[in-house]
Amino acid sequence: MAEATLAERVRRGELRAASRLMRLVDDRAPAAAEALRALFPHTGKSYVIGVTGSPGAGKSTLTDRLIAQYRKAGKRVGVIAVDPTSPFTGGAILGDRIRMQGHAMDKGVFIRSLATRGNLGGLSRATGDCLLVMDAYGCDVVIVETVGVGQDEIDIAQLAHTTVVVLVPGMGDDIQAIKAGILEVADVFAVNKADLDGADRVVRELKVMLELRHAVRAPPLDHDAHHAMVRAKAEGRPAEPQLPVEWEPAIQKVIAAKDQGVDELVAAIERHRAFLDSSGQRATREQGRALAQFLALLRERLVRAGLERLERERGRLEDVAGKIARREVDPYALVDELARS
Amino acid sequence: MAEATLAERVRRGELRAASRLMRLVDDRAPAAAEALRALFPHTGKSYVIGVTGSPGAGKSTLTDRLIAQYRKAGKRVGVIAVDPTSPFTGGAILGDRIRMQGHAMDKGVFIRSLATRGNLGGLSRATGDCLLVMDAYGCDVVIVETVGVGQDEIDIAQLAHTTVVVLVPGMGDDIQAIKAGILEVADVFAVNKADLDGADRVVRELKVMLELRHAVRAPPLDHDAHHAMVRAKAEGRPAEPQLPVEWEPAIQKVIAAKDQGVDELVAAIERHRAFLDSSGQRATREQGRALAQFLALLRERLVRAGLERLERERGRLEDVAGKIARREVDPYALVDELARS
Repeated sequence: MAEATLAERVRRGELRAASRLMRLVDDRAPAAAEALRALFPHTGKSYVIGVTGSPGAGKSTLTDRLIAQYRKAGKRVGVIAVDPTSPFTGGAILGDRIRMQGHAMDKGVFIRSLATRGNLGGLSRATGDCLLVMDAYGCDVVIVETVGVGQDEIDIAQLAHTTVVVLVPGMGDDIQAIKAGILEVADVFAVNKADLDGADRVVRELKVMLELRHAVRAPPLDHDAHHAMVRAKAEGRPAEPQLPVEWEPAIQKVIAAKDQGVDELVAAIERHRAFLDSSGQRATREQGRALAQFLALLRERLVRAGLERLERERGRLEDVAGKIARREVDPYALVDELARS
Repeated sequence: MAEATLAERVRRGELRAASRLMRLVDDRAPAAAEALRALFPHTGKSYVIGVTGSPGAGKSTLTDRLIAQYRKAGKRVGVIAVDPTSPFTGGAILGDRIRMQGHAMDKGVFIRSLATRGNLGGLSRATGDCLLVMDAYGCDVVIVETVGVGQDEIDIAQLAHTTVVVLVPGMGDDIQAIKAGILEVADVFAVNKADLDGADRVVRELKVMLELRHAVRAPPLDHDAHHAMVRAKAEGRPAEPQLPVEWEPAIQKVIAAKDQGVDELVAAIERHRAFLDSSGQRATREQGRALAQFLALLRERLVRAGLERLERERGRLEDVAGKIARREVDPYALVDELARS
């Protein structure tokens, strides 16, 4: 019998094969592309939970507790911790990753840290690839933990089925929550450190904001509907907003450090999952997720191809940048040239 | 005599022309591309100050004070406020923008808000274009205010000559500052709300972190040197890190709301500007800025061209995403196809 391929070994649930594929993906090895393509048709089984929020909100501790809950229920759990670390050294600073080490010996938990990938915007691509591997490996649930501000992070949030936004009392003005655009990506709000002063105020403000949303505008649109509206506008057609049956975001107080309220939080996540299924919105959400993953892939791949062409035709990127800085090369003209295939 | 072109009118310092061009840029009108190309050779005169930090750190109030200081010195000031608002509605929530309205009647201040642009990563491109217009319009100083977490925001930080990172006491663990990768983008730290408990602790921790950096590793590399190292590694050559003469980040306590410490902060910014000039690092910084701007342009343009091609050849993006979600189309194969020109 022929030796099993890497993809086959991942599908059989071999941890070493999955870890090896993750490394190949990191290195952009040709073998990685082959394995990802072989695995793709067999994926779509994991349920993806996004955990997002400001630095200091206690996301890692909460993720740790969620792992424990899902493990208790006999689920195989994947965790992708997206760390916006140094753009310069590229090194991941583990920080609270260490807290998750209690699960390090548990074969039912597969933890992976991702750091930023320079300025080609590869973070959401890397997250999508990781999700695919964990899905094929047999993770029932994958938790994706990100810092909740920034476009890349919002892209990553769109890879989740259920997004949990973690807030804490005393993190600045009420308006901050709106500013970060989190109100509309949240399916569930977790108000962490609920034993601190001001927790009830956060809950109250969230409720007011959710009510205001009802009062002043249409329900939030999913990504696909948004895209359809943008297209309609661009083409000068009247937009036809699709108004989905609405999910009312759940608000749950937790004290992750004391493991309080976490079972209720899991119950809220599971209610959202059931809502997606019963309302028929699961398919729309899957389409949105596929779109986010595809755009991330496309973006990184096209930029890489463009830069390779640039360096073939115009020399080293650094030298070109120097010429742009000295106003000897017009970046607008150069980009036009590279976009013509 | 022929009528002056839009670009000419911007260069003459006509506010209405500059505002009109900004709108054309937003709409990606062909006239915008033409004007930007016409203006490009005449730019490179503005000094760009990045102001970045977590939500709630008081960036907008501080920006407001910086405007006042530079106006007092007779400078024409541009402000680009980058708001990570809702990915769904696309609407900018003005929030503390309102605080800047004190300058609304001042013709020497040109304020512009930018919101996220969907998931094509166009925010740094839009910021670069805005900078170009403000530069050509004659702004001596342009302040770019961003939330300091996320890859897009780090890209934007690379458009600045001097980056001011705003911290406040009590925003979570010490390690958060490192996690967000801000230690290495900061030229100047502003410890805001310095009348709150814990301000001295923040200053102390920053000093320790800066000393640790000296102790455990080489000085931070600028973007170009980093790129050279990555390339060397990819090509299997030994990396030759370029060790620049080092700037020691300044730390300045401020109380923006009471206008305390802001003149000292401006002095620290000006010391950094003088350092860039006297150390010969200004040219390196300009090259890094040009690179960041070029990559932002390239990324958006190539993705747009790729999506146009996709829709010509394979139909509507939403339908393609639906097929990917149902595992009928392999996104990896599709991206390969689109990357081949």
